Amino acid sequence: MPQRHPLALALALAIAAFAVNVAADEATPAHTPSAKELLAKSKPQEWRVPDPQNLLVMQLPQGKVVIELAPDFTPLHVANIRTMAHEHYYDNLAIVRVHDNFVTQWGDPASDDNGNNSKLKSLGSARSTLPPEYTRPFDAKLPFTALPDGDVYAPEVGFSEGFPVARNKATGQEWLTHCYGMVGVGRDNDPQSGSGSELYAVIGQAPRGLDRNLAVVGRVLQGMEFLSGLPRGTGPLGFYEQPSQHVTISSARLMSDLPEAQRTKVEVLRTDSATFAALVEAKRNRHDDFYQFPAGKVDLCSIAIPVREASTSR
Amino acid sequence: MPQRHPLALALALAIAAFAVNVAADEATPAHTPSAKELLAKSKPQEWRVPDPQNLLVMQLPQGKVVIELAPDFTPLHVANIRTMAHEHYYDNLAIVRVHDNFVTQWGDPASDDNGNNSKLKSLGSARSTLPPEYTRPFDAKLPFTALPDGDVYAPEVGFSEGFPVARNKATGQEWLTHCYGMVGVGRDNDPQSGSGSELYAVIGQAPRGLDRNLAVVGRVLQGMEFLSGLPRGTGPLGFYEQPSQHVTISSARLMSDLPEAQRTKVEVLRTDSATFAALVEAKRNRHDDFYQFPAGKVDLCSIAIPVREASTSR
Repeated sequence: MPQRHPLALALALAIAAFAVNVAADEATPAHTPSAKELLAKSKPQEWRVPDPQNLLVMQLPQGKVVIELAPDFTPLHVANIRTMAHEHYYDNLAIVRVHDNFVTQWGDPASDDNGNNSKLKSLGSARSTLPPEYTRPFDAKLPFTALPDGDVYAPEVGFSEGFPVARNKATGQEWLTHCYGMVGVGRDNDPQSGSGSELYAVIGQAPRGLDRNLAVVGRVLQGMEFLSGLPRGTGPLGFYEQPSQHVTISSARLMSDLPEAQRTKVEVLRTDSATFAALVEAKRNRHDDFYQFPAGKVDLCSIAIPVREASTSR
Repeated sequence: MPQRHPLALALALAIAAFAVNVAADEATPAHTPSAKELLAKSKPQEWRVPDPQNLLVMQLPQGKVVIELAPDFTPLHVANIRTMAHEHYYDNLAIVRVHDNFVTQWGDPASDDNGNNSKLKSLGSARSTLPPEYTRPFDAKLPFTALPDGDVYAPEVGFSEGFPVARNKATGQEWLTHCYGMVGVGRDNDPQSGSGSELYAVIGQAPRGLDRNLAVVGRVLQGMEFLSGLPRGTGPLGFYEQPSQHVTISSARLMSDLPEAQRTKVEVLRTDSATFAALVEAKRNRHDDFYQFPAGKVDLCSIAIPVREASTSR
């Protein structure tokens, strides 16, 4: 029945197939467990609850976007973003740019005025410039789960504290990578010109050439589809040409600043857990009724880090 | 002025900066030419006009999508798609699935009916099943422009006839890769179950694990933003839950079947041209006022192949 959404059917089987835990017939190739199956068997301690001070909750007309900040990689930028969120700087700012296969960007829409900055919203007590923080010194105390298949851009890649990371022991540096859903800080040519007042999220093929050139401050945990599924801007660099196209951010708050009733309990699978390792391996070598040729490899930015919303009642 | 779309400003400079062809002061690092500058200097013979029989022109409410088919890689599938386009099979079909960071998929919306295929549109004289064509035998006569920085998934990658390609001389195979904008044929578990009646385009991080498991039939040359910028489906696997969300394809025709007045002259930069090589190198090693650390590397799916619409009057 090839007309019946065949790819979908096949992927449905691949993703949600009934667990095959019985001893496989020797003539039958083993079925790789699906992500759903692996997650169903995960242990509670394999999930972490991010610090509510590291969660930025942004309200769009389409829904809620939750970003986990990464203070161990970009501490000064995260502190500045926390200050701006705390002082409601982001409220009524807007998504002003959706550049296809690149980034969705938000900030002060008044900056569209060519050169006239008088209408710009005040940064309040936040700093207007910051040191770059494009990389950080390698720290053996940070957890690191290495991937086995290499990387085009860096000597070593893997995950640290739930974020995709590259590192180079020769230079003693590590840095967050521009994978899908990662959030960075826009800046001008001056490397010190970024403040966090203008942020972007990656919505296409990972633009890894940006790595080590911009401060990456976190990852979208929830609501990524609201940032990626917007009409593309038709102006240069994907800017919206009409203010009426801007998508208004009604508010952006740290989860820790929200009233208790509005908080949600987001959990992220630990990237140093056994279940995460099993997910990576299942992605590398998938044997099931659909896949004819398991890749045997996986690249850093193709790995999804599971997120779930725990019941607030427990 | 970090509030004034700093990333955009910087990228604007990086992309469209005035040519710096004067001898650089020894104290000043050389500026890498922008893509715009390189293309402005390209020669007419570096551009090719795809065979109109290889261009599928699909009309959506948002605009026109033009797909270049790849008969040298998937000849039977391309022939079947040509038959279906010629017989107007795709007319009034719809985009039924937009799976975030994965694929936008279109086909017969009647296949939503669970198991009831009686309402499905006839495939006419097209074949309902086809041999897989997931890879093709290596052919030294096909042009191949190799990339220098390796690949996580394949021994060798590069471009052939305007398409991203991987190859493995040890197995004697080459295949089109699932980069952003590539178009493939949905199928059921049976490897022979694909026909081309259901197609998908990649809209996120390249799902290279699909390589060699599906027939890849071409690449979106124009209108990719209409496929990628759609609201994501909220059903399982990104299917739209309501028929009212479907995006209707009013028609899909081969360019060669269109009346002369409706044809456009699309040109694609040859991937074996000197200008394309210069673009790749400029992407690998960008030195300008914005970039602090040129990557020195580039991955296959991060390279855009330039397309332009030539004036029909010339």
